[in-house]
Amino acid sequence: MQVSELTEAWPDYDRQERLAGFHALSREDAEEFFTALPSRDSAEFLLELPPLERKTWMRMLPPDDAVDLLQEVSSEDRVALLGLLDEVNRKEVAVLLAYAEDDAGGLMSTRFARVRPDLRVDEALLYLRRQARDNLETMYYVYVLDNEQHLLGVVSLRQLFQAAAGATVADVMTKQVDAVRHDMDQEALSRKYKQHTYFALPVVDGFGRMKGIVTHDDIVDVVDEEATEDAQKFGGMEALDAPYLDAGFFEMFKKRAGWLCVLFLGEMLTASAMAHFEAEIAKAVVLTLFVPLIISSGGNSGSQASTLVIRAMALGELRMRDAFRVARREFASGLALGAVLAVMGLLRVVLADAMFGSYGDHALRVGLAVGISLIGVVLFGTLAGSMLPLLLQRAGFDPASASAPFVATLVDVSGLLIYFSVASLLLGGTLL
Amino acid sequence: MQVSELTEAWPDYDRQERLAGFHALSREDAEEFFTALPSRDSAEFLLELPPLERKTWMRMLPPDDAVDLLQEVSSEDRVALLGLLDEVNRKEVAVLLAYAEDDAGGLMSTRFARVRPDLRVDEALLYLRRQARDNLETMYYVYVLDNEQHLLGVVSLRQLFQAAAGATVADVMTKQVDAVRHDMDQEALSRKYKQHTYFALPVVDGFGRMKGIVTHDDIVDVVDEEATEDAQKFGGMEALDAPYLDAGFFEMFKKRAGWLCVLFLGEMLTASAMAHFEAEIAKAVVLTLFVPLIISSGGNSGSQASTLVIRAMALGELRMRDAFRVARREFASGLALGAVLAVMGLLRVVLADAMFGSYGDHALRVGLAVGISLIGVVLFGTLAGSMLPLLLQRAGFDPASASAPFVATLVDVSGLLIYFSVASLLLGGTLL
Repeated sequence: MQVSELTEAWPDYDRQERLAGFHALSREDAEEFFTALPSRDSAEFLLELPPLERKTWMRMLPPDDAVDLLQEVSSEDRVALLGLLDEVNRKEVAVLLAYAEDDAGGLMSTRFARVRPDLRVDEALLYLRRQARDNLETMYYVYVLDNEQHLLGVVSLRQLFQAAAGATVADVMTKQVDAVRHDMDQEALSRKYKQHTYFALPVVDGFGRMKGIVTHDDIVDVVDEEATEDAQKFGGMEALDAPYLDAGFFEMFKKRAGWLCVLFLGEMLTASAMAHFEAEIAKAVVLTLFVPLIISSGGNSGSQASTLVIRAMALGELRMRDAFRVARREFASGLALGAVLAVMGLLRVVLADAMFGSYGDHALRVGLAVGISLIGVVLFGTLAGSMLPLLLQRAGFDPASASAPFVATLVDVSGLLIYFSVASLLLGGTLL
Repeated sequence: MQVSELTEAWPDYDRQERLAGFHALSREDAEEFFTALPSRDSAEFLLELPPLERKTWMRMLPPDDAVDLLQEVSSEDRVALLGLLDEVNRKEVAVLLAYAEDDAGGLMSTRFARVRPDLRVDEALLYLRRQARDNLETMYYVYVLDNEQHLLGVVSLRQLFQAAAGATVADVMTKQVDAVRHDMDQEALSRKYKQHTYFALPVVDGFGRMKGIVTHDDIVDVVDEEATEDAQKFGGMEALDAPYLDAGFFEMFKKRAGWLCVLFLGEMLTASAMAHFEAEIAKAVVLTLFVPLIISSGGNSGSQASTLVIRAMALGELRMRDAFRVARREFASGLALGAVLAVMGLLRVVLADAMFGSYGDHALRVGLAVGISLIGVVLFGTLAGSMLPLLLQRAGFDPASASAPFVATLVDVSGLLIYFSVASLLLGGTLL
């Protein structure tokens, strides 16, 4: 059996097939396979293994991966699995477990290469050769620490290679090291990674003492995680903590029902708004035919604008101080897009009337009411969709909460008011 | 001036300020700054520099970064900038430019460490020490190539360090190397990275000859790019090629207007659907009051379901063969969510009637019509939202096109049919 075959088939296997497939791997392949499993899967599989094997595999994991795995199991299982580790590793893992999962501290690995500043370069290389046996996360960056673990500098293996053998580490190291605090939030961390081209960043505590490193592969996962959270919020629900198929039914129900009810309550205002115009509707039923068309156009243009702004904010392309530029730009876009739809809407009414005589004497006026409302509604949708994420951020909320359904609900209510007001003005004395 | 200060202020600077800020950096800092700039920004800035400096900075870039930069400028500027490179580099860059931007070939760097298989380990280390001067992308993985550049194996610096000095490279190298073809699409590539924990992957041509490596930092950008494209499609527009503030007004208008018009045409069916029930509406205007409430609930639940499925598909958590499981799950979710909203809707009608006598003798029947329709519409929305991305993929389209507005439009039309059919059944002979 090959690692790639097993990886492919894994999600479809039941427990027996998983065990058989795993045992059919060579020891080396099994290690590669087990380490590469997402922590949720490896946690599940570890608990399926016979107790004796469980210990072997638990002990094989580097501390940061062990922590990721332990964060996926019940607190009962966590205690049992921790007990399988040897003394030294258990302590290290327990320390890492104390960090919040979404902070730099929760992502970091404690297995980094370190040297003292006063070593000579050739001594440092020898010393690194010894450390190479310890399953380090990376050997490429070597961190220079004093006796109290303060981070003094960093030196790359390449720099050590290139240096004169007689120089000391302190001579060749880079002193200005970009480090992050252990309590830096993972979203901020991933932004930092994107602005620069680090392969690894050192993590320090409040006293500048080095605690670990966060490497690029941790960040790819974070970037994905953040994008998923944002997408789910934008879809109008709370972000799930688990992959779709693994999330419990009731947990998922709760995360969806909450927002759905809030939106429903908001949308109830449309019934009130329409009730306000009940007399007009009774006189001109034809007006109601275009209600869904008009309000949905506002929702659609709002959804476009809010995606653009939310995503640009997530990538750090857009900040609060750009709000005015965004508003100006979206004002122009809203007018242009609204005008296009207005022409289509006007044509729809006039053509339908010409072909089927649907709207009696007032076709042109109805068409104009529809067209002018569309400009107003699309303009409002575009502005609301683009400004809402910025306002939410200013108020301390997540901009991604300016979801497509949220913006649509906002625009539905105001869209009705715009439409019926325009219609009253244009059709007052004739149809109304 | 510090690199981080300049990075922070850069987007707000005009040309003069950018030049002044850049020139205020030490040479080393300027190099760091220039290399870390996103290729779009560095291209723009390079063209702002005086011709003499342009040459210096162009020559400083490693070939893959030079390619990224050249892909951002007009074809005229591209020729001029290519002319600034020396012979060797120009050839290398020209070769890379021929690869599609979104393929492994377009992302790869040609600066990787290489050795012959028959070298002794200590010779290999000496040889690597010489290569270290060449500004390699990474030295950590060393690729073992024969005379025709066929990829035979890979050996890590750590393995070389740990090996007995007398062994040959062939003795210690790993022969099974996971390599990707130069024409692999970047989305597939990023999935491959996520399934494993590579730091770098070798890129080979159809004959197994090694062409370059793709490293982790390239992949972080790809992951972000793909998430942005998906988010924009989900927001109901074509994906932009540029950051929001950089995109030209007309280009953005086109990408938004296209989908908005398509959705508008689809939504026109709501007017036809409502016209079909015009007689019922004229008899019971009260029914129209709940039209926006009911159809938007379907859109909202559809938007939730499609986000969940699209994102799970993008992360590789969900495949075609899971369609039945998803359908079963969403059927149950749709019923449960619909029931919650149905109760709220029923209460709204009955309470409003009790307080204001809004709905005359038929309050309970109207309430029931609203409630039952909500169950049907939410169920339909949930199923449509979850199945549409899977169907789109099967038909060869991007599942992310099952956007919130697209699903909402689909559900609006069918929601109207559901609502008026239920109302006709329940209220026939009384209100209707």
